[in-house]
Amino acid sequence: MATHHFEPDHYFTTMGAHAPVLHIAPGDTVITTTVDATGQDASKRKVAETPNAQTGPFFIDGTEKGDTLIVRLEWIRPNRDTGFTNALLAPNVVEPEFVHELQDLPRFDWKIDYDAWTAAPLEPIPGLERLQIPLDPMVGCFGVAARGGQAISTMTSAQHGGNMDYRGFREGVTVYLPIFEPGALFSLGDGHAVQGDGEIVGTGIEISMDVQFSVDLRKGESIEWPRGENDHEIFTVGNARPLDQALQHATTEMVRWLQSDFGLDVRAASALLGQCVQYEVGNVYDPAYTMVCKVPKRVLSSLGTH
Amino acid sequence: MATHHFEPDHYFTTMGAHAPVLHIAPGDTVITTTVDATGQDASKRKVAETPNAQTGPFFIDGTEKGDTLIVRLEWIRPNRDTGFTNALLAPNVVEPEFVHELQDLPRFDWKIDYDAWTAAPLEPIPGLERLQIPLDPMVGCFGVAARGGQAISTMTSAQHGGNMDYRGFREGVTVYLPIFEPGALFSLGDGHAVQGDGEIVGTGIEISMDVQFSVDLRKGESIEWPRGENDHEIFTVGNARPLDQALQHATTEMVRWLQSDFGLDVRAASALLGQCVQYEVGNVYDPAYTMVCKVPKRVLSSLGTH
Amino acid sequence: MATHHFEPDHYFTTMGAHAPVLHIAPGDTVITTTVDATGQDASKRKVAETPNAQTGPFFIDGTEKGDTLIVRLEWIRPNRDTGFTNALLAPNVVEPEFVHELQDLPRFDWKIDYDAWTAAPLEPIPGLERLQIPLDPMVGCFGVAARGGQAISTMTSAQHGGNMDYRGFREGVTVYLPIFEPGALFSLGDGHAVQGDGEIVGTGIEISMDVQFSVDLRKGESIEWPRGENDHEIFTVGNARPLDQALQHATTEMVRWLQSDFGLDVRAASALLGQCVQYEVGNVYDPAYTMVCKVPKRVLSSLGTH
Amino acid sequence: MATHHFEPDHYFTTMGAHAPVLHIAPGDTVITTTVDATGQDASKRKVAETPNAQTGPFFIDGTEKGDTLIVRLEWIRPNRDTGFTNALLAPNVVEPEFVHELQDLPRFDWKIDYDAWTAAPLEPIPGLERLQIPLDPMVGCFGVAARGGQAISTMTSAQHGGNMDYRGFREGVTVYLPIFEPGALFSLGDGHAVQGDGEIVGTGIEISMDVQFSVDLRKGESIEWPRGENDHEIFTVGNARPLDQALQHATTEMVRWLQSDFGLDVRAASALLGQCVQYEVGNVYDPAYTMVCKVPKRVLSSLGTH
Repeated sequence: MATHHFEPDHYFTTMGAHAPVLHIAPGDTVITTTVDATGQDASKRKVAETPNAQTGPFFIDGTEKGDTLIVRLEWIRPNRDTGFTNALLAPNVVEPEFVHELQDLPRFDWKIDYDAWTAAPLEPIPGLERLQIPLDPMVGCFGVAARGGQAISTMTSAQHGGNMDYRGFREGVTVYLPIFEPGALFSLGDGHAVQGDGEIVGTGIEISMDVQFSVDLRKGESIEWPRGENDHEIFTVGNARPLDQALQHATTEMVRWLQSDFGLDVRAASALLGQCVQYEVGNVYDPAYTMVCKVPKRVLSSLGTH
Repeated sequence: MATHHFEPDHYFTTMGAHAPVLHIAPGDTVITTTVDATGQDASKRKVAETPNAQTGPFFIDGTEKGDTLIVRLEWIRPNRDTGFTNALLAPNVVEPEFVHELQDLPRFDWKIDYDAWTAAPLEPIPGLERLQIPLDPMVGCFGVAARGGQAISTMTSAQHGGNMDYRGFREGVTVYLPIFEPGALFSLGDGHAVQGDGEIVGTGIEISMDVQFSVDLRKGESIEWPRGENDHEIFTVGNARPLDQALQHATTEMVRWLQSDFGLDVRAASALLGQCVQYEVGNVYDPAYTMVCKVPKRVLSSLGTH
Repeated sequence: MATHHFEPDHYFTTMGAHAPVLHIAPGDTVITTTVDATGQDASKRKVAETPNAQTGPFFIDGTEKGDTLIVRLEWIRPNRDTGFTNALLAPNVVEPEFVHELQDLPRFDWKIDYDAWTAAPLEPIPGLERLQIPLDPMVGCFGVAARGGQAISTMTSAQHGGNMDYRGFREGVTVYLPIFEPGALFSLGDGHAVQGDGEIVGTGIEISMDVQFSVDLRKGESIEWPRGENDHEIFTVGNARPLDQALQHATTEMVRWLQSDFGLDVRAASALLGQCVQYEVGNVYDPAYTMVCKVPKRVLSSLGTH
Repeated sequence: MATHHFEPDHYFTTMGAHAPVLHIAPGDTVITTTVDATGQDASKRKVAETPNAQTGPFFIDGTEKGDTLIVRLEWIRPNRDTGFTNALLAPNVVEPEFVHELQDLPRFDWKIDYDAWTAAPLEPIPGLERLQIPLDPMVGCFGVAARGGQAISTMTSAQHGGNMDYRGFREGVTVYLPIFEPGALFSLGDGHAVQGDGEIVGTGIEISMDVQFSVDLRKGESIEWPRGENDHEIFTVGNARPLDQALQHATTEMVRWLQSDFGLDVRAASALLGQCVQYEVGNVYDPAYTMVCKVPKRVLSSLGTH
């Protein structure tokens, strides 16, 4: 149950079987930092490549292919006074004819007010002079070494996690990840001070972060897609295009979870999900889109099985 | 500002330029009933065809193509003691390989407890013996006569509305619809006592309803896709396949709304939506899928423009 | 076996249960004309609405829902000296970022040379001064009254046919269509002097036509999607979005055909299609895309079953 | 202009910056062998992992990121007496409801008759007893090291090539590939004795091969997606899901080609493609689907620019 203070000195922009930066044990906690999506750190020095450079990978001792990694996101906090966003909606989230309205404009900065716990454009934007957005920090991109010996760009996502940009990956959340390589090789980065669903401008408010997470292990239990839980919900994550397919993965993974851990057969899982399921949209900007399938814990606890 | 008590004696399963069942005026209120998705009424008599037979259409005097119809859903309540659902997830919402797990099973009934305000399977389902789902009544299918002289099945949806199966179409919501035919020809049906996102078993808890709605008109103002608002949010609705395209329609319609009514240009709308937008999933079962794009009213009111 | 010379005096832009313009019998032949996609006839007078105004519908005596209509396209010939096309690729067929390159330009005309049997831009286009495209006349939009009492716009397509824009619907082809309304109510229009796959500029060379077709009937035999055959292939047509789903419909319809008419079970159909199937792309411009699934007749005849 | 006889002793199942097996120079020819999709060689010994183990990678001296690799497929021939296929259509190529018809069956073998130049099931399949399919050998999976330092599974495809399963990658074809790593790192495998469009059973007739290819270089010229040409056509390849997006990539890449090498602006390219383009379907089985965009050389030569 050690606590590791880890200061990164190099970063990766793919998620594969890279040499680990640190060995840790199940139960351990890591306190470290992440750079922003363009590789800039807390002092706005560029110390890493784009996109979404990762802190890690961390080798979790005793983990093997086929196990499940548990990661608890304990502290996810921006650590500098400004972040930035793209200026315009991404062309793939509007009607094709509307793309003509999206004339190229540069990225711009947002001021982070830690006392008020809000973000606002650093230079006023006409019409938004009074805009104050409550902070809701999250990690956009994290996961383990990819499946089948691959090294997958941090620009996209798959079964190993990756650039999912789901607002629900915030402080207090526990995440479950399938393990494909010895040591799991967990890494994280791409912090957002806040982000709307879908990351539809192609960014959240991109910023460097102070982060703390702990890890644990489900030995010999395998899952197909990332899962998670917070105080109120359990959820599964599908990463694919189109969104329809991401939804298929997330829904099927939830059925498997209800079967294995909650004792439901397909009929009971269908009855439950049909009337209680909720979906949320992660990234619809990157090569793979992300759909999240959620079930409220109050529904599950009423079953008396968990 | 008349109130009409309307008792339907015939129903339609397409949304087009049918002969109206009643003429009403902007400002008027209609109190009526709807049958369930299979055409059964409050006494479980089959009085209409499948699917999703509509009460109406109502001709709103003074409305023309290019206007916008306003409909306020004032009372949306199941009116009998049981509803039904399909037994299993639809094959298009799971991974293709998982379809083999979905062996055909018959629809089953749910008991509606109006005192407890919950629904539960009429015959116990193993694993779900204690399940009690809070009611959240909604209308699955409503809209106006379709665009361009079409008559579109109530099995699907498009710009005129239709079978959107969005949980947010509940009591208290105001809906805006583009008008394509003289009189708008509004109709509604397909009530659900409750439904999960996506209508992923192909049904909510299907039930007949007592409904009350009032209508109004925005003369000379046209919109492209259905819109709505509740106490907390404004929202737009895109209906298409794949979900990616439904999301494009909904997002673009929201940009148009922010431009026309909130004085934002594309850059300001992008900045706002990028960090504040929320999506919800309507139907992912029917020929056209439904995606809802929402903006919280607290964000808009902070702009000081509405 | 009558031959009808029919001169249209009105046209429809939806495919539904319209009053027929003529009653004909199985075995009969119709000689008539079609207007271009914008409703202009052989003398370039605008006599019909957009889009894709239909000549018909023709009521085929003795046909009922559940039968299959057989239409043989016997003569499909442009009948004036120019046609027109859109100037630029449709925004939905290029990468979203590339849409910016497609600045709005007007439609332009193509000269039809009946002696050389070619088309060329009427005003020279820099770089294409010598372009001569061989004519390959086809009908873009035809079919029967839509399913379930619907009236579907001629801008799109579904199981009843509609705006499929498949180059293979040329002279000499036999088409099979499911029948949803008494009399089938066949209509046709939207002639193209030539068209690339996909109709990716949103038009072929749009032109009015002289057409001749004959009809026949498969009583009591029903199909799900349009089918066809020419001298070399049998084919099935799926209309949906995304193309993946259109391909699913076309492929499944071909399996059903191989099962019912060629005595193959699913395993044999899989073995045959897996190594012999060919796909062609119809429309990727309209609300529903079109995919065509083909099997060479030489393969089928080698089976000794047809 | 050396000719290398290369005998592989190890294989890779990802396409990334692996240590090269051989250095060759632009202009050189390689004569070698490939194993089948399951790693079995000409003597049916399993010598490599699944899926689609690659012979290579070959380091082409003098090539760098941003150059274009030219590969000429000179000899593509099966080298043993049987190949195999999956037994049934893949569940993702049929309507979701139809998946129930696809009950699991084992792979089976096909006999290759080199004299008749045909393939036929080794054990007779009822209904296909007389089936003889002409051979049309092709390579299913080839390409260079993936973009951005990635290692991408040979199960899928992207800009670097990969598992495209396009029937047009046969003997006599010249392929152009973008280069992302020093030396390009070309590899190939996954030979098919024949394959239908789409690889819709998830396999062609999978077989080991004798292959010969030569390489060349376009220094300083970069392309975005694989391109190719045969005697009759030039073509571009898009790899993505859904097929709609693959088509967007392929079409946009063809416009870029027409702009850079044929002197056409977007308007001329649109006019040409709109009436002359042809599409072919590569893989619709793997994580990324493949669409091929073709232009006949006779059309281009009529322009007098090539």
